[in-house]
Formats: sequence, structure tokens, C-alpha cells
Amino acid sequence: MPPGFFCLLADPSGFLGTPWPAALWLKVFQFKVMFPPPTGRISEMSWEPGVWDVLSNCCWAGVVSFSGTMPTLRLLPFSILLGVVGILCVGLTGFWCYHWRGGFGWDGTARMFNWHPVFMVMGMVVLYGAAALVYRLPLSRRGSKLPWKLLHAALALVAFLLAVLGLVAVFSYHKARTIANMYSLHSWVGLTAVVLFSCQWLMGFSTFLLPWAPTWLRGLYKPIHVFFGCAIFMLAIAASISGINEKLFFSLNNATVLYSSLPPEAWFANTLGLLIVVLGWMVLWALSKPAWKHPELDSPEAQQPLPEEDK
Amino acid sequence: MPPGFFCLLADPSGFLGTPWPAALWLKVFQFKVMFPPPTGRISEMSWEPGVWDVLSNCCWAGVVSFSGTMPTLRLLPFSILLGVVGILCVGLTGFWCYHWRGGFGWDGTARMFNWHPVFMVMGMVVLYGAAALVYRLPLSRRGSKLPWKLLHAALALVAFLLAVLGLVAVFSYHKARTIANMYSLHSWVGLTAVVLFSCQWLMGFSTFLLPWAPTWLRGLYKPIHVFFGCAIFMLAIAASISGINEKLFFSLNNATVLYSSLPPEAWFANTLGLLIVVLGWMVLWALSKPAWKHPELDSPEAQQPLPEEDK
Repeated sequence: MPPGFFCLLADPSGFLGTPWPAALWLKVFQFKVMFPPPTGRISEMSWEPGVWDVLSNCCWAGVVSFSGTMPTLRLLPFSILLGVVGILCVGLTGFWCYHWRGGFGWDGTARMFNWHPVFMVMGMVVLYGAAALVYRLPLSRRGSKLPWKLLHAALALVAFLLAVLGLVAVFSYHKARTIANMYSLHSWVGLTAVVLFSCQWLMGFSTFLLPWAPTWLRGLYKPIHVFFGCAIFMLAIAASISGINEKLFFSLNNATVLYSSLPPEAWFANTLGLLIVVLGWMVLWALSKPAWKHPELDSPEAQQPLPEEDK
Repeated sequence: MPPGFFCLLADPSGFLGTPWPAALWLKVFQFKVMFPPPTGRISEMSWEPGVWDVLSNCCWAGVVSFSGTMPTLRLLPFSILLGVVGILCVGLTGFWCYHWRGGFGWDGTARMFNWHPVFMVMGMVVLYGAAALVYRLPLSRRGSKLPWKLLHAALALVAFLLAVLGLVAVFSYHKARTIANMYSLHSWVGLTAVVLFSCQWLMGFSTFLLPWAPTWLRGLYKPIHVFFGCAIFMLAIAASISGINEKLFFSLNNATVLYSSLPPEAWFANTLGLLIVVLGWMVLWALSKPAWKHPELDSPEAQQPLPEEDK
């Protein structure tokens, strides 16, 4: 067990010399220090390493040991909220298709189509977002990068496979019903996102995981990989919004249930669309927060060759 | 005339001691140094201040004087490309509405609706993007920040006014034709973007331009303002995609011209949608490029109070 773990056990509040109730109060009401009086008094306090930060690591990565100090984080509350929003996005998409669109099947009917939104939201939005945030885990900054690279690649691969299943669902449904493929802007944007995602995965795998790529090439490609990670995610969000919009126009189009009369299904699916936007914002917020970034991603040196240990 | 200008005149190639043809070759083929052999030889060269960088400043900001040295930039080619893509986005939207949708008017007919996509793309995408990039101009790093703040606020205000005109166009058309308002996910996402943009502008104006806000509050709000700048822009892109998609389903819906048969209008407007995505990516690329950021935006200190001169 690394020494940091015992240090943590000896000081579970995370504030050496601060009594438990005070530390708890400070943690629970930490939003209060978001608006400090301009005296600098509060900024002198030390926040790390705190119980929440370690719990956060445990929850995120499924590991229980902890070594050394870590940067100041409020990752646990954010992670819980992000997890809840992610599960809600997938759950509400499933509920929409189950409750209003006839449920699920793998038989070429509309019940097969219903897997399309569920797999796409699960893969291209929720799991993609989780994969993008792997390197924001404080534990990923210590020791070998290899397990984190493998976790990042594995999550992205599962996300990609779900997206492929989502495509199979919609193309099979179209084939069975002789509906044209790939004509709407939603389909163009969505397929562009999936194709670029496959390129992104292959490029990432062959550059960062296979041993052939020289260090200078890895350093050169890294900021491009990071940027396209965000760019494809943005595209997936735009595809989700246009897809939900399009599906509601298709489905709510008879005299009794018009989309324009805003029936409960329209309220429900429109709210789902906004929730997907909120999830997208949360992921981009976590990715852009300077204190959560790996130091080398945050500087012009990111475009320079990586040090030898990053190979 | 500041001394840097004469220095530039005396050394128009930007490489003291480098003969003109060699410097020109290096500038024209500078993509070659994107893939340097790992010897470090090329990285020893000095690129600044180069003719391209100064021209870039002149084109961007409409100023002709230049003082001191500047960071390495390849801003001019990027700016030209961004300008071309922005003009293309607005121009193609206008051509779509003019050529296939009956042209423009302000009379409650579909010709009035046609101003909606044009004003929205012009305001919420192109001018919004230009406003966001004001602080990426190298000149904005020197001297007083006030003129750049005013330019940023003015561009954003014009963008917002165009968005309001775009909303007036669609609501007036709906009223004249007794079409329901605000039922589709596109309308929810789009109106959310415009409302948040108005809040963003008011918050920015009252915090950074009016003199009442204390330094610590400005420092606290700055990263939030920067993040929501990107987040609302992302929302505007998603609204554009879903809006073009929705409009094509509305318009191409009779037996002779179906969206699913991909007539020329569908090809044209789908391509326009992808071009808007490309513009969005270019803006986000410029915003995220570490070398083009203001140094204080790129570090954890961004969340600390600003120095006195940034007031």
C-alpha cells in the first residue's frame, strides 16, 4: 500500500489539523468559496488530498489504492452528476421508444428502428463522453499511462461498436420498408460523425498504442487527436438533436397527434434533446477546465515531442 | 511609427540574414516543417516577425501600424480561409432561399421566412464566430484592452440584433399563416441559444465594460464567459443543422420533389449544413490552439483575479 493511502487514513477529512465538522461543512458548502471576499484568506487553505477526491478516483476507475498528493479537484460531485445525466439520457431515450414508439425488436419493423436512437445516444454521446474524460482522472497522471490508454481505447471501441449496431438497426429497417437511405442532413451529419470516429480510433490506436510510432509523431498528432475528439463529439450532439427533431416530425403527423400541438411525447423528446445538450456541455466543461487537464495538454509544449516516458 | 515597423521594412522577409527566395520558399512550403525530421535543426530557426503575420494583423483589425515582436502565427492563411468559409455559409444560405424558396420580402409570406436562415447563419454562426476570435488577434495582446473589448462587444451585439431580426422574420411568418410557434426541438434549441446569448452579452457588458465590477469578480466570471461562449456557439451549430433538416422536410414533400429522392436543392442545402459544421470546427480550432491563446487564459491562473491593468 503506498504511503499516501496511510496519510489519507490518518487524515480522512483532507484538512490536516482541521476538525471533522468544520471540514465537512467546508466540503458540503464549498460553493460558498466560489464567491470569496477579496481578502485572500480562504485561498490560503489546503484542499488536497481530500476524501472526496479519493472516493472520486475509486468510483471512476474502480481502484482502491492511492499514492501521493493530487491537484485540487471537485471531481466526485461532478462525476455523480455526469453519471446521472448520462444514465438519464439513455434511459429517457429508451423510455420514449418503449412507451410511445412500440418498444424494441430485431425484426425489420419500427421496433428494430427504435434501437437506433438508443444505441446512438449510448455510444456516440454517453460512452464517447466517458472515454474522452478518462485522462481527467487524477490517478491517470501517476505511474504508467498504458492502463489509461487501454481504458480510453476500450471505452471508445465499445462506443463505436454501439454506433455500428445503431446504423445496422436503421439500415435494416429502411431495407425492410424500402425507405431511401442517407438523404437527410441528419443522416449525412450522423454518418460523418461515425466515419470520422472510426478514423479517430484507428489513428489513435496505431499512433499511441502500437509501438512503431516515433515520439515526435506522437507529439505532433496528439493535439489533433484531442481537437477531433471534441469536434466529432460536437457533431454527434448536432446529429442527436436533428435526429430527434426529424423522428418527431415523422411520427407525430396525423390529425389527432400533430407535433405542432405539442403532445406529451413531443414535450418528453424535446426535453430529452435539451438534456443531451446539457450532457455535451458538461463533457466539454470537464475537458476545458484548466485544473483538470494534464499539464502538458495545457501549454504550447503540447505540440512538441513528448518526453520519453510518454511513449 | 513604432520602431518595429521600420525593423519590418528593413527585413521584409521576416528572417534577418536569410535571402528573400529562401525565406519565401520556407513560408510557402511551411507545411513541410509540420513534419520535421527529429533532429531539432528546423526548430532553431526564428519565424517572427514575418510579413504574413503583419499582413494578417492588418487584414483582421484594419490597422496598418505594427509594434514590437509577436508570437509565431500562421494566422493569415487561416483568417483568409475562415473568411471565405464564413462568406460562403451566408452566401449559400441566401442563394438557397433565393433560388429554390422564392426569394426575400418582409410581407408575412414564405419570402419573409427566408430571412430567418440568412439572419441566423449571419448572426449566430458567422459574426458570433468572428466576435469570439477577436482576442486571438496578436495585436489585442498589446496596449490597452479596451478597444478589443469594444470590438468584441460590438460584433456580438450586431450578431445578437441579426438573431433577433431572424426571430422576428419567423414569428411574423407563423402569425400571418397561423402556424404554431415553438413546438419543434429546433425551435427550443435555437431560442435557448439566442436567450443564453443575450444573457452572455449582458453579463459580459456589465462585468467587463462597466466600471463597477471588482477585479476578483472579473477573474471569477472570465472562464465562465469563455466556456459559455463556446457552449452557445455549439448550440447555434446544432440549431442550424436541425433547422436546415426541418426546412427541407417541410419544403420537399410533394410527389414530384421528395427530400428522399435527393433533388439538387437537397444536395445543396445538405452541403451547406456540412459547411456550417466545418466553420464551427474552424472557430473552435482557433479558440483551442494554445499558441493563439492569451497566456492567462491557458493556465489555472485564469481563475484567479486579474492584474490591475486588465480592469
